Amino acid sequence: MQTDVAIIGGGPAGLLLSQLLMRAGIATVVLERRSRAHVLSRIRAGVLEWGTVQLLETAGIGDRMHREGLPHEGCYLAADDRMIHIDFMAACGRQVMVYGQTEVTRDLYDAQDRLGATILHDVEEVALHDLEGDAPHVSFRHAGADHRLDCRFIAGCDGFHGVSRPSLPAAVRREFEKTFPFGWLGVLSETPPADSELIYANHARGFALASMRSRALSRYYIQVPLTDRAEDWSDAAFWDELRRRLPERVAAGLVTGPSIEKSIAPLRSFVSEPMQWGRLYLCGDAAHIVPPTGAKGLNLAASDVFYLSRALTAHYHDGRDDLLARYGEDALARVWRAMRFSWSMTMLLHRFPDQGAFDRRMQMVELETLIGSADARRTMAENYTGLPY
Amino acid sequence: MQTDVAIIGGGPAGLLLSQLLMRAGIATVVLERRSRAHVLSRIRAGVLEWGTVQLLETAGIGDRMHREGLPHEGCYLAADDRMIHIDFMAACGRQVMVYGQTEVTRDLYDAQDRLGATILHDVEEVALHDLEGDAPHVSFRHAGADHRLDCRFIAGCDGFHGVSRPSLPAAVRREFEKTFPFGWLGVLSETPPADSELIYANHARGFALASMRSRALSRYYIQVPLTDRAEDWSDAAFWDELRRRLPERVAAGLVTGPSIEKSIAPLRSFVSEPMQWGRLYLCGDAAHIVPPTGAKGLNLAASDVFYLSRALTAHYHDGRDDLLARYGEDALARVWRAMRFSWSMTMLLHRFPDQGAFDRRMQMVELETLIGSADARRTMAENYTGLPY
Repeated sequence: MQTDVAIIGGGPAGLLLSQLLMRAGIATVVLERRSRAHVLSRIRAGVLEWGTVQLLETAGIGDRMHREGLPHEGCYLAADDRMIHIDFMAACGRQVMVYGQTEVTRDLYDAQDRLGATILHDVEEVALHDLEGDAPHVSFRHAGADHRLDCRFIAGCDGFHGVSRPSLPAAVRREFEKTFPFGWLGVLSETPPADSELIYANHARGFALASMRSRALSRYYIQVPLTDRAEDWSDAAFWDELRRRLPERVAAGLVTGPSIEKSIAPLRSFVSEPMQWGRLYLCGDAAHIVPPTGAKGLNLAASDVFYLSRALTAHYHDGRDDLLARYGEDALARVWRAMRFSWSMTMLLHRFPDQGAFDRRMQMVELETLIGSADARRTMAENYTGLPY
Repeated sequence: MQTDVAIIGGGPAGLLLSQLLMRAGIATVVLERRSRAHVLSRIRAGVLEWGTVQLLETAGIGDRMHREGLPHEGCYLAADDRMIHIDFMAACGRQVMVYGQTEVTRDLYDAQDRLGATILHDVEEVALHDLEGDAPHVSFRHAGADHRLDCRFIAGCDGFHGVSRPSLPAAVRREFEKTFPFGWLGVLSETPPADSELIYANHARGFALASMRSRALSRYYIQVPLTDRAEDWSDAAFWDELRRRLPERVAAGLVTGPSIEKSIAPLRSFVSEPMQWGRLYLCGDAAHIVPPTGAKGLNLAASDVFYLSRALTAHYHDGRDDLLARYGEDALARVWRAMRFSWSMTMLLHRFPDQGAFDRRMQMVELETLIGSADARRTMAENYTGLPY
């Protein structure tokens, strides 16, 4: 087999890259370890920056998103019973779109099918070869046979546990990591959301988030110790704890129902540098993980794809390689700023095991600053709705 | 003895309060545990917010400050060899004044002498009585005899170790404290400053600060472990370490000389609430301690004195007690914001024992934000030059 760009991973990053490249006349092959059904069953992020929205439009998959997605012009930060409204439009003139990652992925598969994309599922034993030359190739096993995919470029979109990042020599990689001493217990339920906007709650008992995927599908989270197990939390116990942590007037109106998904995710910040090596370019979780506070995971994958698709298009259309050469630098500059935002939101809103009364008061003073300072609100809104590419 | 306001402590907070009250026709007596020579020998802060400058003018002691002080329109934050200029005037239209606390205290003593103030030194066994009634009194020992000072109000300006704060019942006090795992080794030398502005340096070896008291008197600090002792640091070792941490072009031009003072101060954040109890009102270090990063200690004492002198003047001139009733609330609102600034500057610039590569990179990203964001520079400048009263 042969193609221009071999894309490792058929999640939203790999599919979006393939979609953008194919629309620019660049051939791709996508190799995915799992089945399509499995990829589409994953419950992930739900808030799209406006830059991501525009990139999805560019990829030709904006229609359903604009029809079914919920534009949000602000969000709430809560401190016990006090609610602080951050009006994104007033603060920075941008908004976000609530539209689940699962829906984005489905739209991408549909669009890729329409373009006749080559997406191989249930691919095993993927290995990357000759990355430092100008003719790399990928070996893999598929449908009971060994295959070789020759290409010019490889895009590593295969997530934190994928083979792409470890394919960079260990000696050139530098990893930055911070693990937080807690996780998020998330519940998805077919109930109307607690509010029309998201509520991020700092509470003495721990963080809580009232989020949503649609007008009929709610997503709630509570901070839990890493030692907790999702199966030990009954739905009733979850709703009780969520009610305690949300502002009273929100809790009073909370509509509950059976959970249709319940899981615990640890919180971690992680960056691996560099994001490119020879003909291999990393995108999304393959290179970096953000804690979910601030909803930057999928959006960072999208901005990586923006930079890489632009660079590859410049190579094939204009014979320019300068954007490819600086792909890692461009992507990382934005990654680190989003890392800082996600980290600071995480620090601002959670309870920490070693947190004293002083530290907790510092969180409250920081939240009060958002009430009093237009600059602080603008900074928050600019970061939340997405820094420019 | 009898007076309107008994002031416990003859440091800058107590003297400034006495000066402002006396100029408003309100009688004071200042009780100081140490000799005047001892008070004047203490080497402390050196950067005055513009609000503090204006308050000293109001107190009638602005002349020498304006003649000998150095107005600063900006400062530098350094990250290794990179220097980031914060232009206070451009960012927020205010500046600061470099003028040593020792000089402020001397000016206050001179002014108090001219007004015929009653300032008792070497006072012992100070105790506060009947704080909850409307006729409190202070007992103390002075010049070999026991005394009783009857008054209407007591101002506790006697610092962290003074008797005023512990005179509030333990049951009503709530204390917030954070200790940092390092100290500042400070050196005073009769040498020209490294630069015309202050340089706050984040360096892999630890924080350093190039400050000054005048054009001929420099004040330098380096972060050291709490286990270090000042007497174990030779002048040569200090200058060597300082040079390593300052940006290369600053270090290259550094003029060194014998230290005329050398000491280690631990870094701590501390707030005790409430700041008033009955007829007792706390000002300055008696109620709160900031780490020196950001130079807020003396300035917070000044803002407390502003609120208290305004409230007492309203009581005596206008028969209004509302400002007295909310003194603690007014003072604390500003205290907490300055606490947050000092804490965030401390977190931004120091090395921490448990700091990993990720945390250090977060500091660098934060510093880069100051380069790229006018909002971030304005926030920094507004806090550094002093939030409005």
